[in-house]
Amino acid sequence: MTVQIIRTIKELRLAIAAYRADNAKTTVGYVPTMGYLHEGHASLLRQSKSENSVTILSIFVNPLQFGPQEDLDKYPRDEQRDTSIAEQAGVDIVFMPSVQEMYPSSMLTNISVAEVTAGLCGFSRPGHFDGVATVIAKLFNIIRPDRAYFGLKDAQQVAVVTQMVHDLNIPVEIVPCPIVREVDGLALSSRNVYLQEQERQQALILNQSLMQVSSYIQAGLTTEQLIDKLKESIGQKPLANIDYVEIVAYPSMTMIDPKQILKGQNSSILVAVAVKFGKTRLIDNVLVNFSEAGE
Amino acid sequence: MTVQIIRTIKELRLAIAAYRADNAKTTVGYVPTMGYLHEGHASLLRQSKSENSVTILSIFVNPLQFGPQEDLDKYPRDEQRDTSIAEQAGVDIVFMPSVQEMYPSSMLTNISVAEVTAGLCGFSRPGHFDGVATVIAKLFNIIRPDRAYFGLKDAQQVAVVTQMVHDLNIPVEIVPCPIVREVDGLALSSRNVYLQEQERQQALILNQSLMQVSSYIQAGLTTEQLIDKLKESIGQKPLANIDYVEIVAYPSMTMIDPKQILKGQNSSILVAVAVKFGKTRLIDNVLVNFSEAGE
Repeated sequence: MTVQIIRTIKELRLAIAAYRADNAKTTVGYVPTMGYLHEGHASLLRQSKSENSVTILSIFVNPLQFGPQEDLDKYPRDEQRDTSIAEQAGVDIVFMPSVQEMYPSSMLTNISVAEVTAGLCGFSRPGHFDGVATVIAKLFNIIRPDRAYFGLKDAQQVAVVTQMVHDLNIPVEIVPCPIVREVDGLALSSRNVYLQEQERQQALILNQSLMQVSSYIQAGLTTEQLIDKLKESIGQKPLANIDYVEIVAYPSMTMIDPKQILKGQNSSILVAVAVKFGKTRLIDNVLVNFSEAGE
Repeated sequence: MTVQIIRTIKELRLAIAAYRADNAKTTVGYVPTMGYLHEGHASLLRQSKSENSVTILSIFVNPLQFGPQEDLDKYPRDEQRDTSIAEQAGVDIVFMPSVQEMYPSSMLTNISVAEVTAGLCGFSRPGHFDGVATVIAKLFNIIRPDRAYFGLKDAQQVAVVTQMVHDLNIPVEIVPCPIVREVDGLALSSRNVYLQEQERQQALILNQSLMQVSSYIQAGLTTEQLIDKLKESIGQKPLANIDYVEIVAYPSMTMIDPKQILKGQNSSILVAVAVKFGKTRLIDNVLVNFSEAGE
């Protein structure tokens, strides 16, 4: 069966209602994206496919989550390639609404999530997570999925959506999925296509630096010492322009005392970086789960 | 069949799922309230009952929508009387969650609706409509009603909820219902119990003044002239302390030019008042629908 392409909310609701009417045990898995799909997205789609009877992919470059100086207009798009990746992953419905379909009149309602958005990209990109939370709430209301799949490359986004779903009692299970990387370690991102050859080469420093995190923690570094080490390591690359290197508790995203020795912490911590190479801003992170690490 | 009293979200969801599983054509009508029910609420319940197979009433005095100086603690409550009114109206489920059940951890997510909340009670009670929008979104996510019934005494609340539901694609039909009044014209409100004998007597001026609105409009008054007339009329009562008298387009709640002659307008307008009598703040309004009035 070929994938169904749907562009209007009304048709999408009818198609989902038909699945649910057909079989009361239908479960809907949902993967929200901005398109220009890569293997990271494909891994989410396959996981949804394996856990649900119906899998829906949405492709919508959401203007609300872009700042005025950001890359909304040049964000990469390729419907045909995306459709074929969706089809290979076994997606049932691709929802590709227009901006007009999603925002038919001026949007007066805003959802904001406090605390979780205070640092990292929430600080660097004011309004970004309001835009994310608001469009995800809309898409959840349109699709009413049983499960929704998000990549942990956007770890703060996962934390924001999880908090919103909890606070607003949205009946959906948020499933966080691991970062997918190129063989050389670069975290997959639709924005990687912007990178010049040399920028891409130097961007490998992000993963290389993050891979040192656990040994630095073992060595007894404090939060601020670890941040310094990472900044130093990334800063060796002349094309790297650091936006932030931050360490927060996860998923609360709350600050950790800079003087705190990280070894022996009993909660998860997120070590996250945002670095510009040329005009392209990349993010990457590592989640350190102390309880599982048995420390 | 007696009414079912439910206090937890989990049990409520199970009860609703059972109705829906039992009959795929189930429609759920929902009336959100803060309890201390009066005939205004009862009219909403009866309308829901006549239009849906299942009617759910929620009673929750929502702390989020009260300002620090407001009457949260002394807001009147009477579970037993409310339950009996619900039963008489044919309600199937009364949902009475605790504050702990609705806000189990610190609430980080906020929903705000711009423009519609700029004037009237949105201006007088900062944060009030954020609290309303947020709790209504939660309750809609918990109950997933097909229709929800709101009284037009809180006309701005109806406008806020309608805008939010539209903007966030919440699949529920908002049904606005007419104001219910005592025989002497006082708009029903749970807060009326606060009124001293003399205050209650003087509060009749609100409805008496609003009843003059259409003849004032016929006489060719401008927005500001009508406002002045109403302030003058209400101000004759020594115990009346005017918070606002406002005229806005409905349901956009946008300002109308003060110099505009209201006769012959081609959209609906809302004439709304908030007046304190002693410590009790009362609101009342009249909706003037020019197209139906045949002008």
